[in-house]
Amino acid sequence: MTTASPQPAVPPRPEAPPPPPPAPVPAGWLGLAADHPFGLQTLPYGSFTTPDAGRPRVGVAVGERVLDVTAATAALLPEHAALFADGTLDGLLGTGPETWARVRAAVTEWLVDERHRATVQPLLVPAAAARPRLPFTVADYVDFYASEQHATNLGRILRPGGDPLTPNWRHMPIGYHGRAGTVVVSGTPVVRPRGQRRAPDDAISHGPSRRLDFEAEVGFVVGAPTEQGRPVPLADAERHVFGVCLVNDWSARDLQAWEYVPLGPFLGKSFATSVSPWIVPLAALRHARVAPPPRDPRPLPYLDDSAPGADQPWGLDLDLTVSLNGHVVSRPPFAGLYWTAAQQLAHLTANGARLRAGDLFASGTVSGPERDQRGSLIELSWNGAEPLKLPDGSERTFLQDGDEVVITASAPGPGGARIGFGEVRGRVLPALPEAVPPPGPPG
Amino acid sequence: MTTASPQPAVPPRPEAPPPPPPAPVPAGWLGLAADHPFGLQTLPYGSFTTPDAGRPRVGVAVGERVLDVTAATAALLPEHAALFADGTLDGLLGTGPETWARVRAAVTEWLVDERHRATVQPLLVPAAAARPRLPFTVADYVDFYASEQHATNLGRILRPGGDPLTPNWRHMPIGYHGRAGTVVVSGTPVVRPRGQRRAPDDAISHGPSRRLDFEAEVGFVVGAPTEQGRPVPLADAERHVFGVCLVNDWSARDLQAWEYVPLGPFLGKSFATSVSPWIVPLAALRHARVAPPPRDPRPLPYLDDSAPGADQPWGLDLDLTVSLNGHVVSRPPFAGLYWTAAQQLAHLTANGARLRAGDLFASGTVSGPERDQRGSLIELSWNGAEPLKLPDGSERTFLQDGDEVVITASAPGPGGARIGFGEVRGRVLPALPEAVPPPGPPG
Repeated sequence: MTTASPQPAVPPRPEAPPPPPPAPVPAGWLGLAADHPFGLQTLPYGSFTTPDAGRPRVGVAVGERVLDVTAATAALLPEHAALFADGTLDGLLGTGPETWARVRAAVTEWLVDERHRATVQPLLVPAAAARPRLPFTVADYVDFYASEQHATNLGRILRPGGDPLTPNWRHMPIGYHGRAGTVVVSGTPVVRPRGQRRAPDDAISHGPSRRLDFEAEVGFVVGAPTEQGRPVPLADAERHVFGVCLVNDWSARDLQAWEYVPLGPFLGKSFATSVSPWIVPLAALRHARVAPPPRDPRPLPYLDDSAPGADQPWGLDLDLTVSLNGHVVSRPPFAGLYWTAAQQLAHLTANGARLRAGDLFASGTVSGPERDQRGSLIELSWNGAEPLKLPDGSERTFLQDGDEVVITASAPGPGGARIGFGEVRGRVLPALPEAVPPPGPPG
Repeated sequence: MTTASPQPAVPPRPEAPPPPPPAPVPAGWLGLAADHPFGLQTLPYGSFTTPDAGRPRVGVAVGERVLDVTAATAALLPEHAALFADGTLDGLLGTGPETWARVRAAVTEWLVDERHRATVQPLLVPAAAARPRLPFTVADYVDFYASEQHATNLGRILRPGGDPLTPNWRHMPIGYHGRAGTVVVSGTPVVRPRGQRRAPDDAISHGPSRRLDFEAEVGFVVGAPTEQGRPVPLADAERHVFGVCLVNDWSARDLQAWEYVPLGPFLGKSFATSVSPWIVPLAALRHARVAPPPRDPRPLPYLDDSAPGADQPWGLDLDLTVSLNGHVVSRPPFAGLYWTAAQQLAHLTANGARLRAGDLFASGTVSGPERDQRGSLIELSWNGAEPLKLPDGSERTFLQDGDEVVITASAPGPGGARIGFGEVRGRVLPALPEAVPPPGPPG
């Protein structure tokens, strides 16, 4: 048994090691611009079809093109081609970091070495012609609540007068399981959900949500699985996290508020969760790693990342941007997240729960301390009390039918380059007509 | 929009139609005893291996034998053999009620008609030689909280002084998503989980749970999937629910109590959920259907099953038995559950969330009004205040290492026969030693 309280004060965190000297990013034979977010420093994976071929293929985004990795490995990396045959990332995810590194190195070589050009060039599809698919089969989906600013804002809004953070919040990354079956790829329209809500006069009704919201989050895709009963210590997280994507965890605040005590969010979240089509390998984010913020109290040992040399830093310096109908409404900073992805994974598995390839865990809404860094409308409009003014003269408290939300992000890469994440995009469609119950059996 | 409040009083529920006259259950050429719970009236499906053949096969339990359905369909029902080729129920689940009925009728015929005996008899495996496997790939797992007695008991224990039921409880089936990846088949040992808990003096520690519990539940296995955006009305539930199993939703009460506000249960539940190996088709439970209890207030229309003729009754008269180390400690009655499975499914999909073949939803702990009908130790021992005395002279507040929990059930079948559910069994193993973090990188 280990005890957290009382604990010594948090020691000053040692300085992170100096970053490696900038290395120029090769332009490859495509002649990619040094500032392209999908340059050779990024090489994110996805799944796509094309108008002339409905068969799903694994792709790697490079510049304005998508490399057909299913075809390329069949031609150039036959020992790993079976991993990509079904056109999803499922096979690759389950292998582990050695294979991930081997495939990434091979793809890089194909795009740099002129000797591969004749083989590879015909396998490049214009990005505009590649229709993204959900890149992997989502096994379990866990959503955390790891931003102190977001949790504080929600606590102030939903439980005014009390301590905005619940007593457990600084002791563990709070999270819950979401619905894996309704994770959808960017571009999928989101139909306004129906559900129960309680009016201020306590009347209970059922109908289309009136308080539909977005949540700007960062998602982590688990690759290498674990055995039941084997927690993942902080130092092992990078052997299990394959990559990073963007997440919009759509939320119906009126449904959520009425249902969530005592068992947590359910229908207020389970209608849709959108993810970006391109999974950025963790290997691409070496230059984005930053020290996490200090924590008080010092976390229990299984969550304590302040020990010198125990781990490389797991804060990630991602700059998010949220746009509503083309107007930037927020720029949430991911770097300061209170609980890191490694801590989230260590906590998620601390009870022995096994990981499967395709498990997805998300950070929870990312919010910074400034108003224009809040990652959800309930925060931006302070639960509707302070409508958000858009440059087109309109106002928003919550999302209207037809609204389109786009979340993008980038992170520092080598040699001054940026790592792009693409975008997660979704438009709100009106609620469907209420289903008419079919007639009962005769009699 | 539909409004619930104010609503007219609940009208008296019409009498359920009289049960069909008893039909004798055929003994088949196996000569099955009329009172065998796995007679031809039951025919539950599972997945198994045998010591001499590690390849998974779909099985149907009949008497003291298991019919190898993968082999039998290959020989006798070739048009559906592909559904069973992988040795799981995944293929069959996804088809729908017409195919479910066709296969069930075929299996019945094979076991009744002497003409099939020569083909089928060699495909019967002694039940003792069939090693059960998880019968289907669990897609999403949802756990409800549908027993009024259980929810009331938990409210009294965890929130003394207040109203034991939260204000939403009588308006909707409260539920949450659990971890699909840690659903295990009966017989799998359950390692005591580690986790965070808060002591009465507010000290936070991490270690093996001291309040490990069982929860006796009934699970519903979804077969036919739905499209996103299409709720399942009450009358359609039987087109989507393939069958019924028993569930032990193991719970670490100390972890759960510390973590669950505000986002619900997480690590206190996610370490293991055990299911029985045999899925009893809904088609076998026609004689077990009973009227659900009256509800006040009357539920909103999408949950209202009191309209005459709108639906056949969805209460199910299952008698559960919970044994601890061989001693019966509880007999929870399922028939009186406040929210039925059809209501749970209608609610789960009311926001448009799609269903996938393999979705599992469970009732939540089944507890009756009597003390010896409580479906969990936290209720039986009233949170440890009233230790449960076992006939061997020992006492239990929560589970000890080595304890074995077995949940069984049966339901009325045709002609006075009973429908058996088999059992879900699990033994508690001691917590594993705390993982020692590997040494950090040099420097």
